[in-house]
Amino acid sequence: MNRQILTDLLKKKEFKAVRSILEVMNTVDIAALLAELEDKEMILAFRLIEKAKAAEVFAEMSSSMQTYLVEMFTEKELKDLIDELYMDDTVDLLEELPANLVTRILEQVDKERRAQINTILNYPEDSAGSIMTTEYVDLRRTTTVKEAMDHIKKTGIHKETIYTCYVLENRRLVGIVSAKDLMTMDDDMTMEELMETEIISVTTHTDQEEAVHLLSKYDLLALPVLDQQGYMVGIVTVDDAMDVLVDETTEDMEIMNALSPSEQPYFETGVIKHARNRIGWLLVLMLSATLTQTIIAHYQEAFTAVPLLVSFIPMLTDTGGNCGSQSSTLIIRGIALDEIHFKDIFKVIFKEFRVAILVGAALAVVNGIYMVIRYHDPMLALLVSISLVATILIAKLIGCVLPLVAKKLRLDPAIMAAPLITTIVDVCSIMVYFQVATHLLHLV
Amino acid sequence: MNRQILTDLLKKKEFKAVRSILEVMNTVDIAALLAELEDKEMILAFRLIEKAKAAEVFAEMSSSMQTYLVEMFTEKELKDLIDELYMDDTVDLLEELPANLVTRILEQVDKERRAQINTILNYPEDSAGSIMTTEYVDLRRTTTVKEAMDHIKKTGIHKETIYTCYVLENRRLVGIVSAKDLMTMDDDMTMEELMETEIISVTTHTDQEEAVHLLSKYDLLALPVLDQQGYMVGIVTVDDAMDVLVDETTEDMEIMNALSPSEQPYFETGVIKHARNRIGWLLVLMLSATLTQTIIAHYQEAFTAVPLLVSFIPMLTDTGGNCGSQSSTLIIRGIALDEIHFKDIFKVIFKEFRVAILVGAALAVVNGIYMVIRYHDPMLALLVSISLVATILIAKLIGCVLPLVAKKLRLDPAIMAAPLITTIVDVCSIMVYFQVATHLLHLV
Repeated sequence: MNRQILTDLLKKKEFKAVRSILEVMNTVDIAALLAELEDKEMILAFRLIEKAKAAEVFAEMSSSMQTYLVEMFTEKELKDLIDELYMDDTVDLLEELPANLVTRILEQVDKERRAQINTILNYPEDSAGSIMTTEYVDLRRTTTVKEAMDHIKKTGIHKETIYTCYVLENRRLVGIVSAKDLMTMDDDMTMEELMETEIISVTTHTDQEEAVHLLSKYDLLALPVLDQQGYMVGIVTVDDAMDVLVDETTEDMEIMNALSPSEQPYFETGVIKHARNRIGWLLVLMLSATLTQTIIAHYQEAFTAVPLLVSFIPMLTDTGGNCGSQSSTLIIRGIALDEIHFKDIFKVIFKEFRVAILVGAALAVVNGIYMVIRYHDPMLALLVSISLVATILIAKLIGCVLPLVAKKLRLDPAIMAAPLITTIVDVCSIMVYFQVATHLLHLV
Repeated sequence: MNRQILTDLLKKKEFKAVRSILEVMNTVDIAALLAELEDKEMILAFRLIEKAKAAEVFAEMSSSMQTYLVEMFTEKELKDLIDELYMDDTVDLLEELPANLVTRILEQVDKERRAQINTILNYPEDSAGSIMTTEYVDLRRTTTVKEAMDHIKKTGIHKETIYTCYVLENRRLVGIVSAKDLMTMDDDMTMEELMETEIISVTTHTDQEEAVHLLSKYDLLALPVLDQQGYMVGIVTVDDAMDVLVDETTEDMEIMNALSPSEQPYFETGVIKHARNRIGWLLVLMLSATLTQTIIAHYQEAFTAVPLLVSFIPMLTDTGGNCGSQSSTLIIRGIALDEIHFKDIFKVIFKEFRVAILVGAALAVVNGIYMVIRYHDPMLALLVSISLVATILIAKLIGCVLPLVAKKLRLDPAIMAAPLITTIVDVCSIMVYFQVATHLLHLV
């Protein structure tokens, strides 16, 4: 199905045909197809989708398309849509809409649902509460398998996921039963007998990354979310977790490369926004490089005496930068995957120290041989090789310590990545280089 | 439950107590706890776990623990374990074991299963075939809901996931039915009536990243895998997809930061292995930096005449490196998320060009003001600012073009990240800088 066919059918008012096509298509693909249409055609096509499916297609749309649709909808259409939307999709929508449209939507929902929505909207950004859905299957201890299945049959159609059921007692979670248990166990067994009581859960204020980490670690399809008082309030589902995982990774990579993180895809971000996301860190790093300028200026005598010294500066600083970013990448990733913690700092330092010695020795030897062959100057070769080892040692230590310190200070470790470390290592390596040079070549 | 308690109980031979504790614990946590024990205690504790659960615990263990257990097991124990292990876990195990143990295991499985295992072992690394499981629920068109539920009840216990059922006709996939449908629809409806016929599937040779991308895009719990002839052979489940997503991301980050990708966690990798993973790229980059050395040496006269010139080299090259890595990160990520393709190359270049102009202008102005205040030398300020703009333009263009070209050449775009681009941009920016300097300051 492509855009042209759809446009033609819409122009010829072949609505029945369009409707049948949309009926067999996947909601994700419909949303992608509608995104290619003109606004007017888009709303026309959207109105031809059957109600429950329309809500799912709506949930897959970009926020600009959603805003346009909400603006154009009649009150009746809006109510139909909101009735069908899952709670977490409704909240996502409200977070993106301008205030006047938010009010219009909140007018369409009943009091109880409005209260729920407002509670979720108030959870901190990036918390488990902010990505959970409040729709799930709750059962009692005494419910039998047969009763549970009937209950799901009656109410389950509107639940986002029914594959994990929660056994509650006074609103507190006491056990978990999987749909697999319900499908494979005898009809008259009770939840009490079936349920898993070792429960893995998070609270509404838990970081969403932590929630995703637990879902992945324990291979769960959904994770229960409790409020501060320990009452069950919702679940985080695996499909949302996958999205969070992708978003958080992108964010980490962007921060690690001196970009302000942005949730919009590349092409949907305007040129000015792109520039703004990049200028901040570049300015900071450019201005901190003035320190390097001062140091180099300080050693003017040395390199006017031996001009060749200058030509090794980029190689030294680049190698330092690369070594530092190797270490910081491993540590940042280890922290993100919960494999490395602040308490391991001395273990990490010792390990990086030994790695740095090995790496430094290897590079120093290769560089030494290369320089002796090219410049026939063993002293110069020795100077650069010593500086290389020192630079690598410093770079590896800074590269492993800074992310751990950032974590301890509750900053994002990803900030302590390549660009910042390069700037710091530059200063150190240039100082070492010229210090060694002045001593070794007797320049002072 | 902690290690000390378990060790004490084992020493006192309180096996009943240990058994009850292990009974309520989660398989993931048991594996983590056993990892802390001495080898002999570990195997003792492992033998106390109930059979089916033991297989799950085994699947969660590190490959060194698995190897040790397989070595120590009697033939009977080995057979029990393999019988309970899911197909994909068995394959994972065989991929890690030394050859003599592989043979021992293959002797324990029946002919049909051995053929299956061998087929999966032969799929290319990182393909959908290599991560799929061959256990899934298959139904026929005429199966009713009631029959399907009975079928699952009888056979479903050993299936890794039963939440998506596959309707086959002559081994070809004709429709998909969710467990939710089975649980909520009338008993006498047939699969024919219920099934979704718009099927999203991959082949055994599809890249695993593509499979994960589809699972995430369409919010699926499992994705059917077809062989080259179009017959259904297995499924990729969402829990494995999450693991692939995490592994692939880690690999990308490592490649982007001049590391040879490694699947082992930081602390489990030895110092020598760590050093080996890092030296390769560092050597390549160090040796390519000899080009920069040659260029700088070529301009000796310029900077012996105006020594201050030297002090701006690190700032220029760092800014170039950072600008380049900003662009390459966005493009590499966009390619990974399937948002940017090679055909977009001119759109990307045009966008990066405009962003570079904005970013360059901003940085040039700030740098100009700063330098005039600090050095009272407008000509020098102009020189550095012009070089800055040129460097940023070059860096952004190289940063966006190289990953796309790599993709086109079927290389991993992640290789074209910060370290490589820094080295290339160094050469360009230093050439521009000294060219502009010689002209502007009339040094030649």
